[in-house]
Parts: sequence; C-alpha cells; structure tokens
Amino acid sequence: MTPEFRRDPLHHVWVAFAPERQRRPQDFLPPTLQGGTLDPFAEGNERLTPPEVYAIREEDSKPNEGGWRVRVVPNRYPAMRIEGQLVSSPEGLYDRMTGIGAHEVIIETPDGDLALEELPVNAIAAVLATYRERIVDLDRDHRFQHIYIFKNVGPSAGASLAHAHSQLVALPLIPSFVEGKLARARDHFIAKQRSLFSDILHSERAEGSRLIAENDSFVIFCPFASRFPFELAIFPKRHHPDYASCTPDELEDLAEVLRFALQRLNEVLENPGYNLLLHTAPLRRPHTERFATTRYDYCWHLEIVPRFSSMAGFEIGTGAYINTVYPEDAARALRGEEPS
Amino acid sequence: MTPEFRRDPLHHVWVAFAPERQRRPQDFLPPTLQGGTLDPFAEGNERLTPPEVYAIREEDSKPNEGGWRVRVVPNRYPAMRIEGQLVSSPEGLYDRMTGIGAHEVIIETPDGDLALEELPVNAIAAVLATYRERIVDLDRDHRFQHIYIFKNVGPSAGASLAHAHSQLVALPLIPSFVEGKLARARDHFIAKQRSLFSDILHSERAEGSRLIAENDSFVIFCPFASRFPFELAIFPKRHHPDYASCTPDELEDLAEVLRFALQRLNEVLENPGYNLLLHTAPLRRPHTERFATTRYDYCWHLEIVPRFSSMAGFEIGTGAYINTVYPEDAARALRGEEPS
Repeated sequence: MTPEFRRDPLHHVWVAFAPERQRRPQDFLPPTLQGGTLDPFAEGNERLTPPEVYAIREEDSKPNEGGWRVRVVPNRYPAMRIEGQLVSSPEGLYDRMTGIGAHEVIIETPDGDLALEELPVNAIAAVLATYRERIVDLDRDHRFQHIYIFKNVGPSAGASLAHAHSQLVALPLIPSFVEGKLARARDHFIAKQRSLFSDILHSERAEGSRLIAENDSFVIFCPFASRFPFELAIFPKRHHPDYASCTPDELEDLAEVLRFALQRLNEVLENPGYNLLLHTAPLRRPHTERFATTRYDYCWHLEIVPRFSSMAGFEIGTGAYINTVYPEDAARALRGEEPS
Repeated sequence: MTPEFRRDPLHHVWVAFAPERQRRPQDFLPPTLQGGTLDPFAEGNERLTPPEVYAIREEDSKPNEGGWRVRVVPNRYPAMRIEGQLVSSPEGLYDRMTGIGAHEVIIETPDGDLALEELPVNAIAAVLATYRERIVDLDRDHRFQHIYIFKNVGPSAGASLAHAHSQLVALPLIPSFVEGKLARARDHFIAKQRSLFSDILHSERAEGSRLIAENDSFVIFCPFASRFPFELAIFPKRHHPDYASCTPDELEDLAEVLRFALQRLNEVLENPGYNLLLHTAPLRRPHTERFATTRYDYCWHLEIVPRFSSMAGFEIGTGAYINTVYPEDAARALRGEEPS
C-alpha cells in the first residue's frame, strides 16, 4: 500500500501511514543507536544517503562528496512521498489524503562524534540558516501547508541514529496541535489586541522566576505549565510569524542561546535525551486564510523538551501531563543557583 | 512545594505538578521493571502499600491482609493529593488549581507472575467490576469532574512495576483530549441527530476490513486512523456515556473480548508493551453542563495501544502521528489471516 494521511472524526488527529518504514510486524524493536557499523551521515559516506537536496560546502567541492559543513538529504525511510498529486477525499465518516510530503534529514556536522551544542556558534548558525533555506525552498511547492522541523536526541526521544541531525517535514495539512495554538493565539489577539506570545514574554520577563537567559534577540525560559521536567522555550524578541524572516544576525544570536541552553541541560541533567521543536506559522496559502490574523498574532518559537521517561497511559489518553519538577526549580538549577 | 495543576493559554494543556514523585533532578532514570526485590503488590506484602481503599476478598479475610482477588490502594507516589480544598485561581495569563485528586492503583491479581490476560475470564471481570466500584465511590466526591483509568504494561508504555495493575485518577478538571472528543461528539450529534460512536460502529461493522471480533455486548476493531501500530478500540453495542452503567453480564463479556484482544496481541507481536485506556464521560456536575447533550452523544469505550517506540519530536510537537502499519493489515494479522 502507498503512503497516505488519515483522520477520524473522534480523535481529529492526522496519521501518516508509512508502510515502507517497516517490513514485518516483528520489526518493532525499541530504537537502538547504531554504533560500530558505517555511519551514513559521516563525511566520506555520502553514497550511503539519497542524493543531497542542499548543502553548505567548500567552493571547490562537489555535491554528494566530502567538503560540506551542513548537508540535507531526503529521509531514506520517509513518512511521506515527495512525488505525486495531492488528492484529498472522504471515505464515509473518515478522511484520506495522498501521503504527499517532504521528509528531509539535516545533517548538522560531518563529524559523527560531535553533538550540536559542541559545535562553535557559527557552525550552529549554519545549521539554523539551513533550516531557513529549506523552508524558503519548500514554500514554493504549493501542495504544502505547513513545515515543521524537529530533532530527536537519544533513544528516549525517539532517535535511531547517533550522528547529530534534525528532520524536516513539509505537510499538505495543518496538524491539530498547530491548529489549536493558532486558534488560541488568534482568539487572544481578537480579545486583547495584543499577541499572546508578546504577553507571555512580557509576563516572564516581569516575573523572572522562570527566566534562564537572554541576549539581543532571544529569551529562554521554563514555561509556567511545562509538560516535561526542564522543558525550555526560546522566544524571539522581534515578533514575527515566520522563522524564515530571521536575519543572519538573529540566527547567530539564536545559535548562541541554543548552544547555551543545551549545554546547561547537559551539565544539570547529565546529557539527557531531548527533542528540539521548531514552530513556525503555516505557509501563506488560500487554505490558511482562516488564520488570516496570524500575521500579527502568531510568533515562531522553539521548544526543547528533555525526555526521561516514556509517555504513559495518562498522557496518551488525556493530553494532560504529570511533571515532577516545577519550572521555577528547573530554572534555578539551569541558572546555576542552589535549590531553595 | 505542594502539588498543583497548571495551564498556559498557548498549549491549553493541564499539567499536574507532583514534586513528591521525585527527589533530585538526577532521579530521572528510565523506568526499569523491578525484579528480585520485594513485590509490594504481591499477596503477603500488603504492609508495603498504603492501606487499601477497596478489595474483593474472601469472606473471613481482613483488610490489608491476604485472601483478596483484587485490591485497590492509593498510589504511593501520587500525582495529586486526596486531602484539601479545591481552589482554582488565575495568575496573570495563567491558571492554577490546587493539586487535588485521587490517584489509586488497582492490583489485578495477588500473583505477581500473571498478566491480566492470563487470568480466567471471571477474574478479569472482577477487575473490571472493581473499576466500576471505584468510579461509583469517587463520583460522590463533588470536587472531581472526571475519572480516567489506564494501565501501563512494559517499560515502553511507562510501567515501573511488573506486577499486573491499573491506575485510576479522579481529576478536578476535564483534560483537553477529553474535552475535544466530547465537543466533536456533541457537534456530530447536533448536525446528524446520531451518535458519532454509533456511526463509527455502524461503519466498521458494514465495512469489515478492520474488525477483529465481537460478542453479544462488544466489538473490537482497529481504528481507521490508528495512531499506533496494532491499536485497538473496544466499543460497547449498548450506547451509554458511563462505564459505570455496565451490568455484570456486560462486564463478563468485556472481560472476554479484552482477554482475547490482549492474547492476540501477545501472539502476533510477542508480548508488546501497551497502554489500556478507559474513556468514560465526565461526572455529572454543574461544570459539565456545557456538555449537556453527552447523555446521548457520548459513549464510553476502551482503547489498547501497543507501544514499540518512544513518542518522538514529530508527535510531541504536532499531535500528528506516523504509523507504519495500516489498520487493515493489523486486523488481518490479529484475525489470524495471511498477509495479502
């Protein structure tokens, strides 16, 4: 069977069926980090990945050979397919859509022994600039409504390869969590004529107990209702819906705060697994006109969620969370202060 | 700090802060199944748990001694506290509520070597009757709005103890996923004058490719938009919002289909970790009057979700899922048919 998206009206969740990612029911092993065998993301092993779609390389180097700093390739086991026509259709009560999408891997460094936060700030900025380049490029494909970039580090966070990398998905739909955030941001703006993001940033800077750090362009804090212990949010000071609007200076500032945040988590929590989540507004499409005010009310942002334990039946069934660490305590530890 | 619930207006997720569940930031070890040490849930070790709140016991046995078949105790590491006054208050943009709730453990058998599905049908029915008894009892406490029962089996599903048990939480709020399901069920009923649950059951029985089994009272099927490989839904044929309405005969029938479903999963997937999720309507409270039509439009149901891999950055940030197995293929395997 070919990939497709499905939705049922009870859960209102889009599910990407990607049967090619798995061969047999027995293939459901817990993720293990590859080691010992060839690293497909290392410099010199470019032939082990699909041909690159983008790279930052030395001037005299050739595509799919060495000499790169950041390299983007299609995911070898994509959850969606880039080729084909987008067809959306009802099936009785249910909804189906052809499994069209981009699923790319952003290889953050040629060196498989380095974590993202071990790179110098300018190299992290190159990764962040690559995110922007891929968004700008995929925005030209009018089948897509939303682009989401994320990073899984460690088995607890769903990673299956140790070499530092992020993933990008370009989707022909707006996922339900994104839809919910957009709707709440819009309602807040309509009610108050202020952005919810600006209001949160204002509150956190005024209150201070959950703040970690800031620089010219960004603020890091532990959210008031953190779902995960030591969860972090990074908000830009310049309000804009689109991550792709970032200037080179802003990306350099973002690299700086991101590196700092990840290094602090490593120190306090001894190299936890984590997810990095980049939330940017949906692409500007006729389909997204219902979020017309999002040019003013939505703001792109980053979330970092350390992952210590599996999501259990409580979280999966309710969407509520149990968290063992108050964000004020996490912030104090990340600022390097003694527990109160 | 004492337990509390928090909510932020961007994510609209309730988080139960339970600082007593953890002592230091370093305590975030991945869950490990206890073995070798004393099993606090085994018969003879009743002193290792808080005093029981309910048990099905032999007539001449005493509380907190042996001679029981099913035993319910408060969770030793509760996410909420049963004592205290419920106070809900704003804090700037945010919401806070005292961490009032019940968090109980339902010990399903005195024998730590048996899984739920290894018990005879009447013993499973006794566990299911215990769920009902606890719901009926906690319904008397007007601080609570919703009761949710779930079961984590295996480390991949968030379990930390191997002895067969379920957990119950009584909450002073309606969690966001439950609110969403109720709202969609209500909208469906208003539009069509039919229950969404009845419509799904009708569709699945008419179409047949995702059906696993049925008996007099229940139908098991793989949902059209299954979020997890081999996800199962169990719907009652008699439409009712409240699980507590089940008759003894219905609980016997439910025990039969549940045992069958879990045994089939074990055979096909070699004893996977899984979550069992029991969704019943919110308790009848003034606060839940906004869901007034739920007496007709909502129906209690069970979900079983095998857990093979961690939820990764894609799922956590979008609420969408990637699933590698079509429900039609899962259903075929669970019915014991050859792959097509």
